[in-house]
Amino acid sequence: MEIVEQVLRGDVRAVARLLRDIDDQVPSTRSILKELYPYTGKAYVVGFTGPPGAGKSTLVDQITAYYRRIGKTVAIIAIDPTSPFSGGAILGDRIRMQRHFLDKDVFIRSVATRGHFGGLTKSTHDMITVFDAMGKDIIIVETVGVGQGEVEIADCAHTTIVVSVPGLGDDIQAIKAGIMEIGNIFVVNKADREGAKKTVQELRTILDMGRRFRMDIGEMDDWEPPIVETQAHKGIGIDELCDAIERHKAYLTAQKPEQFRKVMLKRTLHQFSETLRDELFKEMVRRIERRGDTLESIAERIFQKELDPYSVSRQLIKEEFISHEQ
Amino acid sequence: MEIVEQVLRGDVRAVARLLRDIDDQVPSTRSILKELYPYTGKAYVVGFTGPPGAGKSTLVDQITAYYRRIGKTVAIIAIDPTSPFSGGAILGDRIRMQRHFLDKDVFIRSVATRGHFGGLTKSTHDMITVFDAMGKDIIIVETVGVGQGEVEIADCAHTTIVVSVPGLGDDIQAIKAGIMEIGNIFVVNKADREGAKKTVQELRTILDMGRRFRMDIGEMDDWEPPIVETQAHKGIGIDELCDAIERHKAYLTAQKPEQFRKVMLKRTLHQFSETLRDELFKEMVRRIERRGDTLESIAERIFQKELDPYSVSRQLIKEEFISHEQ
Repeated sequence: MEIVEQVLRGDVRAVARLLRDIDDQVPSTRSILKELYPYTGKAYVVGFTGPPGAGKSTLVDQITAYYRRIGKTVAIIAIDPTSPFSGGAILGDRIRMQRHFLDKDVFIRSVATRGHFGGLTKSTHDMITVFDAMGKDIIIVETVGVGQGEVEIADCAHTTIVVSVPGLGDDIQAIKAGIMEIGNIFVVNKADREGAKKTVQELRTILDMGRRFRMDIGEMDDWEPPIVETQAHKGIGIDELCDAIERHKAYLTAQKPEQFRKVMLKRTLHQFSETLRDELFKEMVRRIERRGDTLESIAERIFQKELDPYSVSRQLIKEEFISHEQ
Repeated sequence: MEIVEQVLRGDVRAVARLLRDIDDQVPSTRSILKELYPYTGKAYVVGFTGPPGAGKSTLVDQITAYYRRIGKTVAIIAIDPTSPFSGGAILGDRIRMQRHFLDKDVFIRSVATRGHFGGLTKSTHDMITVFDAMGKDIIIVETVGVGQGEVEIADCAHTTIVVSVPGLGDDIQAIKAGIMEIGNIFVVNKADREGAKKTVQELRTILDMGRRFRMDIGEMDDWEPPIVETQAHKGIGIDELCDAIERHKAYLTAQKPEQFRKVMLKRTLHQFSETLRDELFKEMVRRIERRGDTLESIAERIFQKELDPYSVSRQLIKEEFISHEQ
């Protein structure tokens, strides 16, 4: 297919069109993705997650500048909890990255979470597939998250960076504990703020607790997640962060190939499960519509208590799946 | 079934056992839920969402105390971004609610998000079904969220309360914009903190922007989301918040039955879609295992580039669904 060759050549317009089609769930994207898939597996995926206001965008901007300086090409997938009319606010955020907008070797893609009725994780995997196939060296996925996001970043990335910030209150403790197991690198940004040392100290304590716990249950690997202090807006700590990413990458790819394999398999399993989940649902919706029915009108009958969601689901499966004699 | 009768009678042990079974995805829960479903539709579901550290648990605790005083029974579903070894931190949070632990008319259920591989929204709907059927008057769903959560609270609740807090930095602006369309009531908690007035002012501005936008596109309803200032730990502003909830409930149930119907239909559609999605995936996993295969081993072959996730998904669907001649 022409589009496949265009994407493999790195044609930016073709890629932009394909991503739009994926977003719009155009059926032909499925076979394009299928053709692109064999060309994937070369990109390195770095995930950034953390609470709102932690300065993730500024960090991503700085990291991108670093990679560009050493000659690597970059794609950025920014997943924003946005809404149709808040585009302005998000745009403001994105404007900080504008110095990369004119760089044809940096591809920036913002994705809104609202309105995505499921399937956002699959979309993220699909975008990674496209960027990987088009030859991007580094794919950065940025998402607001506190260990509970529609896109579980750790399932998409090779290296997951958890960004924290001083002064979010005591409750943040619970959050830190929740995300500590997914972080390969921890960043305390805005490290010139009051309370930064305390935040680092708390993180250290939680990481040590986690280490002991994993040692006890025999799940220990020997990567010790570093805690990097940054002031992203001033460019302070960025070299240290890039160094930490490189060390984690080297750890995975050179020192611990079996660990790398484990990470890759987990990512692949996740992508496959999400794709299968999504395709199954879409197929069933098509079949429901083929019957002259809709999800909405079934929901109406459930609401009227003529049906219940559990029986309808089982009934649909019974009628549309091949029966295997037991 | 005995368990169905026990749940309908409000037997706390039976409910606890059923919820555990739902969590463990025991197949028999499906028919129990089906039996319970006709008895649902009476409970009022109130959702609390907001960033970590906003004081949601303390608010929920106070609201629960209010409902108990006026003789209503309450169930609380607290969705925590936790992990196996961070139980301590979360527990600490929950301890604030301990005054209700001994009250048999308050049922508290904490759910961890990590380890839930999809299906968390369905679980939340299932829990609501159980609590509704057992006769709880009020079901409170509390989730950390910034407009992007695995559980979209607005799709589960009748009244959605968005909790904010002063001093989360400028980036929070984007978040506020992202969640403003889901909130029926806005709370600025810790209203004695510096910057509280500014936070209220910003919220007001964003809400007004949103109103104008919706008016322009003709999507206006006439509910004006109030902004309530609270200091939950001192009990300040709680009466005002409860009053706002009652007013929104009255608005939906008495003044705007067609709006209530819309909310109920949206919730029902969401529950049905999530149930169908989940059942389809489980059915397919069973069929894959019937073939002597597993998701993991398919992922392994995808990783080896023998297969790709898109083709395998389509192939499985082709083989397991009944073919309709075109």
